[in-house]
Amino acid sequence: MLRIHVVNPNTTRSMTEKAAKAAQKAVGSRAQIIASQPEMGPVSIEGFYDEAFSVPGMLAEIKKKEADGVAGHVIACFDDTGLEAARSIATGPVIGIGEAAYHAASLLAGSFSVITTLSRSIPALKTNLARYGLITRCAKVRAAEVPVLSLEEEGSPAVARISEEIARAKREDDCEAIVLGCAGMADLAAKLSTEHNIPVIEGVSCAASFVCALAELGLKTSKLGGYARPLPKPYLGSFAGFAPD
Amino acid sequence: MLRIHVVNPNTTRSMTEKAAKAAQKAVGSRAQIIASQPEMGPVSIEGFYDEAFSVPGMLAEIKKKEADGVAGHVIACFDDTGLEAARSIATGPVIGIGEAAYHAASLLAGSFSVITTLSRSIPALKTNLARYGLITRCAKVRAAEVPVLSLEEEGSPAVARISEEIARAKREDDCEAIVLGCAGMADLAAKLSTEHNIPVIEGVSCAASFVCALAELGLKTSKLGGYARPLPKPYLGSFAGFAPD
Amino acid sequence: MLRIHVVNPNTTRSMTEKAAKAAQKAVGSRAQIIASQPEMGPVSIEGFYDEAFSVPGMLAEIKKKEADGVAGHVIACFDDTGLEAARSIATGPVIGIGEAAYHAASLLAGSFSVITTLSRSIPALKTNLARYGLITRCAKVRAAEVPVLSLEEEGSPAVARISEEIARAKREDDCEAIVLGCAGMADLAAKLSTEHNIPVIEGVSCAASFVCALAELGLKTSKLGGYARPLPKPYLGSFAGFAPD
Amino acid sequence: MLRIHVVNPNTTRSMTEKAAKAAQKAVGSRAQIIASQPEMGPVSIEGFYDEAFSVPGMLAEIKKKEADGVAGHVIACFDDTGLEAARSIATGPVIGIGEAAYHAASLLAGSFSVITTLSRSIPALKTNLARYGLITRCAKVRAAEVPVLSLEEEGSPAVARISEEIARAKREDDCEAIVLGCAGMADLAAKLSTEHNIPVIEGVSCAASFVCALAELGLKTSKLGGYARPLPKPYLGSFAGFAPD
Amino acid sequence: MLRIHVVNPNTTRSMTEKAAKAAQKAVGSRAQIIASQPEMGPVSIEGFYDEAFSVPGMLAEIKKKEADGVAGHVIACFDDTGLEAARSIATGPVIGIGEAAYHAASLLAGSFSVITTLSRSIPALKTNLARYGLITRCAKVRAAEVPVLSLEEEGSPAVARISEEIARAKREDDCEAIVLGCAGMADLAAKLSTEHNIPVIEGVSCAASFVCALAELGLKTSKLGGYARPLPKPYLGSFAGFAPD
Amino acid sequence: MLRIHVVNPNTTRSMTEKAAKAAQKAVGSRAQIIASQPEMGPVSIEGFYDEAFSVPGMLAEIKKKEADGVAGHVIACFDDTGLEAARSIATGPVIGIGEAAYHAASLLAGSFSVITTLSRSIPALKTNLARYGLITRCAKVRAAEVPVLSLEEEGSPAVARISEEIARAKREDDCEAIVLGCAGMADLAAKLSTEHNIPVIEGVSCAASFVCALAELGLKTSKLGGYARPLPKPYLGSFAGFAPD
Repeated sequence: MLRIHVVNPNTTRSMTEKAAKAAQKAVGSRAQIIASQPEMGPVSIEGFYDEAFSVPGMLAEIKKKEADGVAGHVIACFDDTGLEAARSIATGPVIGIGEAAYHAASLLAGSFSVITTLSRSIPALKTNLARYGLITRCAKVRAAEVPVLSLEEEGSPAVARISEEIARAKREDDCEAIVLGCAGMADLAAKLSTEHNIPVIEGVSCAASFVCALAELGLKTSKLGGYARPLPKPYLGSFAGFAPD
Repeated sequence: MLRIHVVNPNTTRSMTEKAAKAAQKAVGSRAQIIASQPEMGPVSIEGFYDEAFSVPGMLAEIKKKEADGVAGHVIACFDDTGLEAARSIATGPVIGIGEAAYHAASLLAGSFSVITTLSRSIPALKTNLARYGLITRCAKVRAAEVPVLSLEEEGSPAVARISEEIARAKREDDCEAIVLGCAGMADLAAKLSTEHNIPVIEGVSCAASFVCALAELGLKTSKLGGYARPLPKPYLGSFAGFAPD
Repeated sequence: MLRIHVVNPNTTRSMTEKAAKAAQKAVGSRAQIIASQPEMGPVSIEGFYDEAFSVPGMLAEIKKKEADGVAGHVIACFDDTGLEAARSIATGPVIGIGEAAYHAASLLAGSFSVITTLSRSIPALKTNLARYGLITRCAKVRAAEVPVLSLEEEGSPAVARISEEIARAKREDDCEAIVLGCAGMADLAAKLSTEHNIPVIEGVSCAASFVCALAELGLKTSKLGGYARPLPKPYLGSFAGFAPD
Repeated sequence: MLRIHVVNPNTTRSMTEKAAKAAQKAVGSRAQIIASQPEMGPVSIEGFYDEAFSVPGMLAEIKKKEADGVAGHVIACFDDTGLEAARSIATGPVIGIGEAAYHAASLLAGSFSVITTLSRSIPALKTNLARYGLITRCAKVRAAEVPVLSLEEEGSPAVARISEEIARAKREDDCEAIVLGCAGMADLAAKLSTEHNIPVIEGVSCAASFVCALAELGLKTSKLGGYARPLPKPYLGSFAGFAPD
Repeated sequence: MLRIHVVNPNTTRSMTEKAAKAAQKAVGSRAQIIASQPEMGPVSIEGFYDEAFSVPGMLAEIKKKEADGVAGHVIACFDDTGLEAARSIATGPVIGIGEAAYHAASLLAGSFSVITTLSRSIPALKTNLARYGLITRCAKVRAAEVPVLSLEEEGSPAVARISEEIARAKREDDCEAIVLGCAGMADLAAKLSTEHNIPVIEGVSCAASFVCALAELGLKTSKLGGYARPLPKPYLGSFAGFAPD
Repeated sequence: MLRIHVVNPNTTRSMTEKAAKAAQKAVGSRAQIIASQPEMGPVSIEGFYDEAFSVPGMLAEIKKKEADGVAGHVIACFDDTGLEAARSIATGPVIGIGEAAYHAASLLAGSFSVITTLSRSIPALKTNLARYGLITRCAKVRAAEVPVLSLEEEGSPAVARISEEIARAKREDDCEAIVLGCAGMADLAAKLSTEHNIPVIEGVSCAASFVCALAELGLKTSKLGGYARPLPKPYLGSFAGFAPD
């Protein structure tokens, strides 16, 4: 059976588990989900600085699972942390959950709005959308102004805020679908879709399903150009162990 | 079990069968592929005029299969013939094979070149790429200058021409993957990928796999905006039977 | 004298007559307007599905008039139904009324807003604008939420709704001109322009005048690339008679 | 009868006459062409500096002809010299010959290449194309490397150079039409079109015909936003006489 | 010591002095600012017509100062009047204050909004932003609807209007910095930045500082392509003295 | 006196020294350059993986120098490694050398080509150019196919390869300036500019000079949106010491 690695780039284990569960549900019996999070780094990713410190530990997990022969990887943070570096060391497909959600939404609707956590994350998401080419499909990126970890708290008002923002997007953005912009929202999509009568897409299940699909088709990450394997060279200091070989 | 409808918009049955076979292989035991082609229309689609006469018959097939309760549809022509009209009458996902190949390539490589049949088809493909947002990921659209139906002939020189054009794309386009631009090329991808040592992506298997994936996740085509269901109204003359109800 | 064909892609004769009248007024004594509508298809075009069923009948009319030696064609539906297929079988110029209105507005103003009928039509218009390159000149596409055929009814509230939407566009869009987004609005432009003190452009007269202008200059539709004549091939079933020869 | 003003922004009378002749031929008996050139300024426009010194004199001519009640203006230089300033003082339409040629080409072909005189003019043309939105329709801007005034010389090798460049554009650019990029090429279009079997478009006749068309339709330049009439204010020194009133 | 020429393209001496003062303060003791304004032309630049009449006199000043051997030029009008013509006759760097402010803002913030004087100036600014490539960094161009010369009046309500518009930009535009869109606002930046707690950037100091920086690095304006030196040719009439030699 | 921090994101001290020297020369006596490189990480940055492992150590250096009160930072790697994370913890300006070179080139020329080291780096540079908005100014990104560290070797053939590629860019790209795409090329610009008679821009001196300029003007990095200071939160494992406070 295919094994697919879901890596949560932050160090909060409850988020890893939520993502693993959503991913396993998405792929069903076609693949076994193996989940991990970095040994070092931030407990949540809210902006560029947190992102920078989540990548090395995440790449270490990807390297380990590559050695174990997994079929592909899901990066379970909505800003697709370290996606390109991960691709350069992976053989199979690597898909970020933001990326997956944007592609899925583009296959189901003419345009979509994104609801993320904090407004400080909006520029990174817009940069990603432009890089993928799908910014022309995005009506608006909105922040519900809820901290990432509040989504892990029972009874948090975060869900109500997200629901309000979806209502506003439907009213103001001329959007035809909603993308939930945080791995921590993975369990909310179905309920919000019913409530607002609009496709609501969360990226973990999409990414797991797409990695599985591409792996089943025998498709692999390109090794030409930007995703070529890292050249062997010394890494100094405490990163010596991460040097490409 | 999920049933997925693969519609070949032209009326050449051998292409329908080739597409059905590739699709069934892609989804394996997860879904049953049901294939069809229009009762009326051109034997191949090579330009805008052929495309116009393939859509009504194709929509009729989609309508029938919707009534039968299929989970989604694949449009098995690389110019994604009638994709938007099809979405407006479908409940589940509808994916064109051109669209699917571009999305898959974008998940595996930074950029891709497309090899299609005739140069007269290039403008339609570029329009689609721009509409999907993925034209920024496309290095170049190339024509091998082989007629569509030559791909159905045993021992045709078409395959050699396509292979030559892939070699040129690798040399001149700075592309990191290749997309095969015709449903009739569905059986060539694996061999060409090995030959040229670059991911070669064909859309039938990708589209079938993505429709299956989205359907399994419970995701449906948006009914807001452009894909809203057609309004009931009279259709005159020989199209009276196609009127929305 | 030049003869110019105005084809209304829907099957409502009153719209054909309104368009023919506007076109004849636009070209005056320089050309004779010959009008037609398809023998089969929807009574109005409101979305992608209706559009698909209006094209075959419209192309049949264009083919007949080409055989009669007309100098060019106007496609009198604002979503420029079947424009590219029509060009592939025409010798002289073929212009859609949406296209004509966008070009005219771009020659008179730095930016324009479009007022169309129903919001379900907005995505198709935006796709066209992007394809023509003129989306950068378009401030906003707005829907007055009036059904197409309500424009044919005496005393309909549709005109008041359109006027309100123009007022809103002037206030909110920073636009310098207005484009009326439906063939059925052809008789409203002058009055609305005076009322709102802004250029209000409708496409039927622009398209007729531009086709006439290009024909007088001896300019013809390119036969290279996307508008190359259809290749001869069999068309099956009830479309056999439409096969290119 | 409508009177249309063709202003040649440079001070070479033979170019004015050639443009006037092409314009009169284009509008036939529908309008009387009135031609002028500035009293001061460069004998040809080859780059940004020449352009700057051609505008004041050209605007003076436009102002005079506005006072005479002309129906509209053609700016007969391919870089559309002073187009926006001209629009701000005109009531009727004002069209530049570059602009007109790009719009005409976009109505006849999916893409076009431009053949201009000197490569130093290419950046200005690209800026214009981007401003009009039509750069997405332009395959390439090429220079034949012939000085503007060489086009006025009998037996000049300039025509042969232009023809060579058209051949190269057909071969290398995937273009479907050619735009001639200098007013001085107005008399070459028909012959080059026959020679190369591709639509060849020159802007003087297109601009004259389009101004005539828009004027006949009663359409005027917008007076909102960028083309609002200049505010009254003192102009100092030798430009005092040009102050708006 | 480097000498840098600040040219105010309008003929209002108080604006020249304000700009010179801001520029000298910006470069400190590294360079001597030499200021000028044209001998002829409008007292303020509010739209395309004024702009056209400010360029010849401004180029004359640049030519004189080039002959004097200055190290570079600042064009002290926010619409970067005549920038490209100026570059074609300059050896050292030439920077417009609009351009400088957009570049500075792009180095300090992810996105910026512009507050200019009158809405009639907005289209010219957007055209410039698109030409520079930085329109993707610009959240919105806003007009405070204050005439340029009102900024020269003691106790004018213009400053309050600008401050209000900054508050609105912060609230509505998701912008991360503010650009002041008129040379006459050069003295307001620091105060407004403190008041609104957001970087507020004015272009005179940025342009002077950047010209000085590039000149110190020995960098010069390219003489290839669009900024090639004007070709020698006759200029007729009262512009004879401006002919390139 | 201002102190400006130049951080070389790789761990090769000779590159740090070369950059520091170029930066000090650029700012002269206006500022004191303080240089550093990370304690951990790759000896050169050639692709996304190396980049990921250079950021944490680089951010540590920036944090230390912020505490020391430097006026701003230069990131001395041409792919502007970690630029956005750096901005989120800096008070003064932070400029990457790629970014600085692109902005400088845009102020001196209409278009530029980039010559970088290896083709695997091209995608990252294009992504940056798109993010900055300046990709529309870039004619082509070329690779000389020389490893980064070969630039540190006496008598390396790398310089000849770069010179050849500049010649090709001049011939094929219609570019008006050249940008050298690696910090290790900082000492080559002047010689290559003379050799090829085209502005050749290297980013270290530009970045140092621009940081100095912005700091002298009192301008600071925005703290709104994407560059807001990191929120305090735990960082686990060996990155605990890097947690924001």
